[in-house]
Amino acid sequence: MPAGNIQSEKLDQAVEILRERDIDCWLTFVRESSETPDPAMKLIVGHDVTWQSAFIVTREGRRVALVGGPEGATVRHAGLYEDVRTYDEGFAPSLRAILRELDPRQIAINYSTGDVASDGLTHGMYLQLVAALARTPYRGRLISAAPIIGPLRSRKTPAELARMRKAIEITEELFAQVTAFIQPGRAERDVAGMLHAETRRRGLETSWAADHCPAVNAGAASEAGHAGPTDLIMRPGDLVHLDFGVAYEGYRADLQRMWYLRSEADPEPPASVRRAFQTCVDAIEAGRKLLKAGVQGWTVDAAARQTITSAGYPEYKHALGHGLGLATHDGGPLLGPRWPRYGDSPEQPVQPGSVYTLELGVPTERGYIALEDEVLVTGAGAEYISPAQRELIVV
Amino acid sequence: MPAGNIQSEKLDQAVEILRERDIDCWLTFVRESSETPDPAMKLIVGHDVTWQSAFIVTREGRRVALVGGPEGATVRHAGLYEDVRTYDEGFAPSLRAILRELDPRQIAINYSTGDVASDGLTHGMYLQLVAALARTPYRGRLISAAPIIGPLRSRKTPAELARMRKAIEITEELFAQVTAFIQPGRAERDVAGMLHAETRRRGLETSWAADHCPAVNAGAASEAGHAGPTDLIMRPGDLVHLDFGVAYEGYRADLQRMWYLRSEADPEPPASVRRAFQTCVDAIEAGRKLLKAGVQGWTVDAAARQTITSAGYPEYKHALGHGLGLATHDGGPLLGPRWPRYGDSPEQPVQPGSVYTLELGVPTERGYIALEDEVLVTGAGAEYISPAQRELIVV
Repeated sequence: MPAGNIQSEKLDQAVEILRERDIDCWLTFVRESSETPDPAMKLIVGHDVTWQSAFIVTREGRRVALVGGPEGATVRHAGLYEDVRTYDEGFAPSLRAILRELDPRQIAINYSTGDVASDGLTHGMYLQLVAALARTPYRGRLISAAPIIGPLRSRKTPAELARMRKAIEITEELFAQVTAFIQPGRAERDVAGMLHAETRRRGLETSWAADHCPAVNAGAASEAGHAGPTDLIMRPGDLVHLDFGVAYEGYRADLQRMWYLRSEADPEPPASVRRAFQTCVDAIEAGRKLLKAGVQGWTVDAAARQTITSAGYPEYKHALGHGLGLATHDGGPLLGPRWPRYGDSPEQPVQPGSVYTLELGVPTERGYIALEDEVLVTGAGAEYISPAQRELIVV
Repeated sequence: MPAGNIQSEKLDQAVEILRERDIDCWLTFVRESSETPDPAMKLIVGHDVTWQSAFIVTREGRRVALVGGPEGATVRHAGLYEDVRTYDEGFAPSLRAILRELDPRQIAINYSTGDVASDGLTHGMYLQLVAALARTPYRGRLISAAPIIGPLRSRKTPAELARMRKAIEITEELFAQVTAFIQPGRAERDVAGMLHAETRRRGLETSWAADHCPAVNAGAASEAGHAGPTDLIMRPGDLVHLDFGVAYEGYRADLQRMWYLRSEADPEPPASVRRAFQTCVDAIEAGRKLLKAGVQGWTVDAAARQTITSAGYPEYKHALGHGLGLATHDGGPLLGPRWPRYGDSPEQPVQPGSVYTLELGVPTERGYIALEDEVLVTGAGAEYISPAQRELIVV
C-alpha cells in the first residue's frame, strides 16, 4: 500500500473534523521540517520541506500549499494539494493573499501545551507568523489546532489499523524468539542485541530509540524505568521484563511481556510473584472495562490505579495508557491521572477509532512486573488488538 | 569514537560561548524529543527524553538536568550533567528551585526567527515555560539562545571534522561509481536506485530524505530544484547533474557533481556548456576568496551572484552556502542574499571553525549545471575539505 494513501485519507478526515468543530481553516506552518519536524507533516504532507511552507485545509475542503520555489515540483508530484503556490524571496505576501481569498473566521495553528502531537510549531515560527499577519484581521484569529490534530491522529483509518496489526504481529514473533533465547547467564544487553539484530534483519526499526527499546529488566537488582539494558546477568528465580515494539511502515507496536526463570528452589513462580502478576492483569482489565469512546481518560486510569493500591502495591508513576500510531506516544487524550504535567489531556473525551496502550507495573522481590497491550476503542468499549499476556512465561 | 565525546566537547564549548557572550544561563526545555526534536539535543544531550525536561548550562560551568523520574537513570548513565534531578508530577516547582539557586541575569532559550537550529522550542512549550515562571523574576529574563547555539554548531571540534571528512570521502567513492554507471538509456531513477543500494550496503543513510537525495537531473527537460528523480531517460549529448551526500555518524556531506554524456555530434561538451561550467567555477571561487571568519555572509554571496549575472546567466534562487554538520542545513550565518525569508542570518559574522557548502548553478540547453563543495572557514580564509570539481566528467 503506498504511503500516499494515508495522507489522502487523513486530509479527508481533517475536513470532516473541521466541520464537526466548526473551524474554518487549519494552517500547518513549517520550515526545514527534517530539523524541527512538526508531527502533523506525516499525516497531511508525507515529505519534508526546506523553506517556510504553509499547508492549508479548509472546512470547504480546499487544500492550498505555499512552498519555496524549488519545492513546488515535489509538492505538485505528491498530488495531495490541488492548489500549490510558490514564492522566491519572502512567504508573507503570498500567505496574506491566500488568507484574504479564504477569509477564515479562525485559523488553527499547531501549538498545544497539553498535546505534543499538536505542538509542532516552533516559537520562532510562531513569531514569524504573527509578524506576517500583523496589521491584518487574521492576526487575531489564530487558535490552537489541538481540537483538529488530536482527533485526526486518534481516529485510525483502515490502512493505519492494518499497519498497526502487522507491527504487533511482528513484535509477538520477536517475543517468541526471546522465549527461546533467555536463560540464566545471559545479560540484559544480550537480549537487546538479539532483538536489534532480528529487527534489522527484517528491515525494520524499533518503535522508539534503540538504546532503550527494548527496555530489559532482569531480576530485582535492575532499575525499572526508561534506562537502557545493562550488563546485569539473569539468574535462576529472576523475573525478566521487556518493553519493546517495532514500527511497520511508520506505525508502532508497544508491548510489555514477562518471563520467569525457574530455579531449583522455585521451579514455578512463587505465590507473591503470582499475586503481583494477577494484580497487574486485574488492574488493566479494570481500566479496559471502563474504556469506550467519549469517556475521560482519568476515570479509566483511576480504576486501574485503585486496583493496584487496594492490593497494597505502590501506584505506578505514569499514565495507564497513551495513544499509539505514527508515534509511540501519539498524543490525543491520555488515560492518565490529573497530574500537572499532563495538563488537561486526561480530561478530554476519548475518540472512537483510537488505539491505546494499557500498561502498568508493580515491584516484587524477584524483579519488576509489568504488562502492556494495545486496544482499539469503539463506541461500545475497547477490544484487544494484541494477544494480552495472562500467564507468566516460565523458562 | 563513542558519540558521547561530541556532547562532552560541545558542553565545554557552550561554557566558553556563554562567557564570550556574557550570558549567565542556557536552558534547553523539551518533551517527547523524538516527536518534536530540538536540534540542540544532539549537541548537548545525545538521546531523547519523554517528559518535560530541562538541560541547563551556566557560565560558571554548572550542568544541571531536570527530567522525569523514569528517565533519571538514563541521564545519569550518560554522565554529561553532574547534577541530575527528577520529578514525578510536575516539573515547574523543581525548575523554579533550580533557577532560584542559580539566579541567572539572563536565561537563553531555544527560539529564533532566523536560525532553524536555534529554534527547537515549540510554542506550546514556550507557553508552559512562561506559565511556570509567572510571578518570578525569571519570566522577564528569557532571551533567545541563538547567540549560543549558532556558534556552538558552527565551530566544529576535531571529532566533528573527522566525521565530516569521512562522509565526504564516502560520497566521492559513490560518485566514482556513478561515473561507471551512467550511460544513455539509463533513467534518473536508476542512478538514485544504485546510490540508495550502495548507501544501504555501507550501513549508512543519505544526508537528507532519500526521495530527493540524490537529486538527479538528466538533460534540459529535467526540472531542476528539489524534486525527486523521475523516469526521464539520459540521452547522448545530455548533461547529468547530481546533488547528493551521505551521513557518517550523524555528520553530513552535501556535494553537487556534473557529467556530460558524449554524442556523435558532440563528443566533447559544446562551447556554451563549457562556458556555463566555467562561470559556475569562477562564481564559487569569487565567493570563496572573500570567505573568512568575521565576514557577513551576504558579501560572499554577492560576489558569486555578481559573477553569474555579469556573465549573462539568471541568478540562482537560493543562498550560495549554508552551514553543514549534524544537519544538512546546519544553521549559523547564511552565505545568502538579504532576502526577507533569510531574516538577519546573512548579516551575522561567519564563525571560525565552521564548515560551509558553496553551491550554485545555471541552466543550459543541455541541462542544468551546478556545483557544490565544502569549505572550512579559518581566520585567514576558507579551504576546501572536498575535492572541488573543475572539469566536466565526460562519459
